[in-house]
Amino acid sequence: MTRTVLASATKTVLMGFDQPFCVIGERINPTGRKKLAAEMVEGNFETVKTDAIAQVAAGALVLDVNAGVTAVDPNMSEPPLLRQTVELVQSLVDVPLSIDSSVPAALAAGLEVCRGRPLVNSVTGEEDRLEAILPLIKKYDVPVVAISNDESGISEDPDVRFEVARKIVRHAADYGIAPHDIVVDPLVMPIGAMATAGLQVFHLVRRLREELKVNTTCGASNVSFGLPNRHGINAAFLPMAIASGMTSAIMNPIRPQEMDAVRAANVLMGTDKDCRSWIRNNRDQSSATAGEAAAQIAESGGRRRGGREGRRRAV
Amino acid sequence: MTRTVLASATKTVLMGFDQPFCVIGERINPTGRKKLAAEMVEGNFETVKTDAIAQVAAGALVLDVNAGVTAVDPNMSEPPLLRQTVELVQSLVDVPLSIDSSVPAALAAGLEVCRGRPLVNSVTGEEDRLEAILPLIKKYDVPVVAISNDESGISEDPDVRFEVARKIVRHAADYGIAPHDIVVDPLVMPIGAMATAGLQVFHLVRRLREELKVNTTCGASNVSFGLPNRHGINAAFLPMAIASGMTSAIMNPIRPQEMDAVRAANVLMGTDKDCRSWIRNNRDQSSATAGEAAAQIAESGGRRRGGREGRRRAV
Repeated sequence: MTRTVLASATKTVLMGFDQPFCVIGERINPTGRKKLAAEMVEGNFETVKTDAIAQVAAGALVLDVNAGVTAVDPNMSEPPLLRQTVELVQSLVDVPLSIDSSVPAALAAGLEVCRGRPLVNSVTGEEDRLEAILPLIKKYDVPVVAISNDESGISEDPDVRFEVARKIVRHAADYGIAPHDIVVDPLVMPIGAMATAGLQVFHLVRRLREELKVNTTCGASNVSFGLPNRHGINAAFLPMAIASGMTSAIMNPIRPQEMDAVRAANVLMGTDKDCRSWIRNNRDQSSATAGEAAAQIAESGGRRRGGREGRRRAV
Repeated sequence: MTRTVLASATKTVLMGFDQPFCVIGERINPTGRKKLAAEMVEGNFETVKTDAIAQVAAGALVLDVNAGVTAVDPNMSEPPLLRQTVELVQSLVDVPLSIDSSVPAALAAGLEVCRGRPLVNSVTGEEDRLEAILPLIKKYDVPVVAISNDESGISEDPDVRFEVARKIVRHAADYGIAPHDIVVDPLVMPIGAMATAGLQVFHLVRRLREELKVNTTCGASNVSFGLPNRHGINAAFLPMAIASGMTSAIMNPIRPQEMDAVRAANVLMGTDKDCRSWIRNNRDQSSATAGEAAAQIAESGGRRRGGREGRRRAV
């Protein structure tokens, strides 16, 4: 059984087909957040602190940490800023981190100070990226997100993206990195621009799981780009991806609609033991309290099993 | 490609893997609705009328019609009552109907007066049911819901339920009824009582689709029986079942949470052409209006495709 082990100094999180869906909080990322970027450049980490605590409170199991403020030379500015941000975040919360940068020196700086076993986000199938990042992965013995594009860009053909993922897994093996430490991002296209985007991802995730036996992740909200009521699309996409075998996502855990969908999907995948997390999180949202729910279930036994509700057998 | 054709006097609905999910409104059913049962016994059809119109307005593509009021002898009382209810409902709305009874004489009475091509709900794998109902299916050339239990009851083993479905498809073939006119209900157990209930259904639906090439349906809300915030569970279950290949459900379309989930799943399966239904239904639920959404998508082109949001390539 494929298991990716993530850890903070004190806490272990397992990613796997038989584990609750691994929600990776995406908020600590200045890309596209001008105000946050300006704060971080000035050494003001108030928003980072708030986002760290709020995301864990909302149910994130892992926090992504990115310090990619726009700069003249990210190779100079990003490593110390990412190091500082990682140190700050791990002083505030005890979940494992995902160290997120496209600057290899910044990944190295983050890895130096990160306790436990963080995820590295990310490597692609491009040769120069593989050569820059896989040695870090090996050195620190950590798992890595593998994005399924290469020198030729992002293919619209899911079979090509699958082959890129396979290539990364093979390259990693050459470095002695096991498939269970590769978390493949099959790339989620906006469904409004490409009607097959959903079917592609569901199909790819299934193949990645069955053929490469790897865990998977994605930037979930990209699927709804450009559409109204994006949270409604995201909240259906996540359970569909989970049913297809997706084991994690980089997402905003602050949105209750998406988190409810993930928690319900955990119940339906059988990874929320005795529905405890669901019942705890929904105690006040229904006339059925947790106690009543348990009693109802116990009482149901054979009577309710498999019967459609409202169905009866008369004759 | 498997296609089940349903029709009213004026409207055709296709059920199939490449079609929008077929929502069958479950409300016109006095089982478990004492007030409705009492009204129908008295010849008061006001609730039936309201439910018919409201369900179609909410997006039901087909309406289930059941007249199973508790009676001393349903063989006597149910046929005329079902006939009357079918006639009333088809005078009010123009969607295809699902004629729902466990009394064969009532199914026959409903079929006599129903225009178009209704669904018959249901037959099981029990010999006496097959012999009573399949000749009606053949005579009227209509599709039928096949529930995967037989004389031995409802098996908790999904492989046994699959074999029951296969048996029904074979029996039907003996009568000259094609697999595309069998809509299998794999039976959904309450997840609170059986942690594997979700995985069972997703696996069964996939096998039914790939091996028997049949459409499928279920009483969707049964999965959440006994749990708090049932709509939250149902709203994740439906997209997960749809991603696994489920093509219809007998459900309450009045609940916006479940219907949003179905509409979003249609978008993600690529069966909501150009996301038109989604945009129309969510026009006012977001700052992005339909026009803006279309413009955003058009503008996005290559730029957004496949990029994770907020992801950038610095070095």
